[in-house]
Amino acid sequence: VIEVLRAALGADRVLTDPELVAPHETDWTGRWNGPAVAVVRPRSVEEVAEVVAVCRTTGTPLVPQGGNTGLVGGGVPRGGELILSTAALLSGPEVDPVAGQVLAGAGVTLGAVQAAATAAGWRYPIDLGARDSATIGGTVATNAGGNHVLAHGMTRRHLVGLEAVLGTGAVVSHLGGLVKDNTGYDLPGLLCGSEGTLGVITAVRLALVPAPEATAVALVGLDDLAAAVAVAATARRTVPGLEAAEVVLADGSALVRETFALPVVLEPEPPVTLLLEVAGTLGAGDRLAAFLASVDGLRGSAVAEDRAGRAALWRVREEHNPAINRLGPPHKYDVTLPAARLDAVVTAVRSRVGGLDPSARLWVFGHVGDGNLHLNVTGLDPADERADDAVLALVAEAGGSISAEHGIGVAKRPWLPLARSPEEIAAFRAIKEALDPDGILNPGVLL
Amino acid sequence: VIEVLRAALGADRVLTDPELVAPHETDWTGRWNGPAVAVVRPRSVEEVAEVVAVCRTTGTPLVPQGGNTGLVGGGVPRGGELILSTAALLSGPEVDPVAGQVLAGAGVTLGAVQAAATAAGWRYPIDLGARDSATIGGTVATNAGGNHVLAHGMTRRHLVGLEAVLGTGAVVSHLGGLVKDNTGYDLPGLLCGSEGTLGVITAVRLALVPAPEATAVALVGLDDLAAAVAVAATARRTVPGLEAAEVVLADGSALVRETFALPVVLEPEPPVTLLLEVAGTLGAGDRLAAFLASVDGLRGSAVAEDRAGRAALWRVREEHNPAINRLGPPHKYDVTLPAARLDAVVTAVRSRVGGLDPSARLWVFGHVGDGNLHLNVTGLDPADERADDAVLALVAEAGGSISAEHGIGVAKRPWLPLARSPEEIAAFRAIKEALDPDGILNPGVLL
Repeated sequence: VIEVLRAALGADRVLTDPELVAPHETDWTGRWNGPAVAVVRPRSVEEVAEVVAVCRTTGTPLVPQGGNTGLVGGGVPRGGELILSTAALLSGPEVDPVAGQVLAGAGVTLGAVQAAATAAGWRYPIDLGARDSATIGGTVATNAGGNHVLAHGMTRRHLVGLEAVLGTGAVVSHLGGLVKDNTGYDLPGLLCGSEGTLGVITAVRLALVPAPEATAVALVGLDDLAAAVAVAATARRTVPGLEAAEVVLADGSALVRETFALPVVLEPEPPVTLLLEVAGTLGAGDRLAAFLASVDGLRGSAVAEDRAGRAALWRVREEHNPAINRLGPPHKYDVTLPAARLDAVVTAVRSRVGGLDPSARLWVFGHVGDGNLHLNVTGLDPADERADDAVLALVAEAGGSISAEHGIGVAKRPWLPLARSPEEIAAFRAIKEALDPDGILNPGVLL
Repeated sequence: VIEVLRAALGADRVLTDPELVAPHETDWTGRWNGPAVAVVRPRSVEEVAEVVAVCRTTGTPLVPQGGNTGLVGGGVPRGGELILSTAALLSGPEVDPVAGQVLAGAGVTLGAVQAAATAAGWRYPIDLGARDSATIGGTVATNAGGNHVLAHGMTRRHLVGLEAVLGTGAVVSHLGGLVKDNTGYDLPGLLCGSEGTLGVITAVRLALVPAPEATAVALVGLDDLAAAVAVAATARRTVPGLEAAEVVLADGSALVRETFALPVVLEPEPPVTLLLEVAGTLGAGDRLAAFLASVDGLRGSAVAEDRAGRAALWRVREEHNPAINRLGPPHKYDVTLPAARLDAVVTAVRSRVGGLDPSARLWVFGHVGDGNLHLNVTGLDPADERADDAVLALVAEAGGSISAEHGIGVAKRPWLPLARSPEEIAAFRAIKEALDPDGILNPGVLL
């Protein structure tokens, strides 16, 4: 395979030096990893098609990889695969300022897409902490959510065109960007969220939203998680332009502040801190302050409207993943819970995790406004699945989702039957066989 | 088949009386029709699954039919099929006022879904003239667009859950309504817009939007179509809450007014009339009036804020389809055109149609704000495909879509290769074979 690829694409496109390959073999959490045959870095859709063709004829399994910021092991090898890095698919980002759309190669970072949109007077509202490493192709392949789903939905909502090489080897391209275009099945939407199992995404066209005139962020202290759920729900109904409602707990805040030597914002540190972000017309800060004045039982608050001040208020929330990772490979659960059950399920999870092992520790943070919490358990062996069984069963029993935005990958695959019926999984398999009949794309992920 | 279905579902569920069957055999335009074996009206997903099972074992092709308001022959037989009417799938509509979602059986009308949402303090923003006949299942199966796509997108954007019987006979159900739920391929989005070729949709869950505090509608007279494109584009950029920008021409307006004895609104009748609708916070009428005051070259205008006044201004636009239908079965083209090419393509289409036959007549109206025009040609034999060839080729050459919102159905199937590459069509076929391996669902539609 290596020789064939080198002959076809050029020797410099195929990495086999262990030092260069190693960073591609282990995921960001450190929990998922495996040895790769090589890393290939095609520069165009034609080169991607050549790689897929070589893999089909040689029966080599292929793992598409973007910025390797995934958290469920969906972008790293299990062992023996070829890694197709999209990092060299760097066309664009090209903004159409009239249509309000951006066209970009799969390897462009999310941050670069956001910056291009902003420079053209628009905004790409999907945002997450890994923005400067995550590729736009990866965010589409995983239907990324992030901080602003409350107002702007997930990635799929913004996807208006896509180019990909399917597992069949066929190049499909529909990048014209017509919003009204009912001419067949929604292939872009199907590939979005398919985690590299149906095709390798090579370019995407995304709809932008108008840039807000003003943005304001508040941190408010609260007594408990139930209060955070209630305040976030009221804010959703009554604060126009609410874009984020994020929650962190006192132990996580303390960990982040110690890890990164950050100052205390609300003093004394409240049990629960809720972050609210509002964007829209001028006066966003006033609207946010007026809302806070109407809420009883606040344990302190802080509001910022300038960019630096807003970033400072976001910092503790955004550094949760990096800080927790330093404690060793965590077991990560990215779940949606119905608002009415959220507090009770977290309490039950805490109790179950605490009973597993004296060193096991639960960290809770996330997008409380849409019920999507990131539950992290540290202090357990990466191979120990007891917490996975317990947590995901509690979530499924409560009518929640076992993967809100991270995807199934390898990490949640054994628990997919908690979320999907045998009939649904059979339909997934039939679609997989239709578009990847040789099963070369990301085998072992999702299905 | 008839006897087996009567035994399984009850005799009253299977219609064979020609008088009862006939309305199901011909589409709304009169251009598409064929004799059916029978019409079956299941009352539950289990009964739909029984019908699909019987069709699979007997090799009987099945045409799912909602309100039979489609315009491309996708919901009526070609000849010899069993029609599965969804009219008796009437669960709900049930609004979850906290989540802002509605759950409804496929046979509930779009109008009933809208009314239930409104009664609960929310709004379902997909809207079209056939609202009181079109079923919600049909609008999902065809990814309906309509009057408010400018602000709210197409049906797929609102779809958060779906239940269906696939061509394999499997019942798939994912109706929980979790907005963040990355647990596998997007089956609801795939079935949305698949025109009954992959599964029979039996129930849907849809996201609602907040009800606006105020809505205002304006009619403005303009000199030509190019002016309407320009004013609509400016309004999109500068008028917050712009939800519709519709256009009608003087000849169409005159036809509608004569057909339904409606009064003249703008006098003298301008060559082009643009309808603008704004919704949002109080003062919508003032914002619309302020915008109109900034536009040069208006040939009269009228604004209405109350429900009856708004409906009166919409009337001429909404009655275009019924009025044109009375002239005989029209050739209908539902196309998206890039804004910069819209005027030139319409001029070219007018010239080509005029050259085909002295009795051929072009009618132009539609959603100019998103480039989606409805071009209708009357005075040609329904079987005469010369206009179809000419119009759709002009649209495709201009980078437009040959079906913006009506779908491919039977009417546009020969021209699908103008819109989609052989690789895309092969992928559609592979998906079709995966989910409907016996090819019993709506054969001849789309593919």
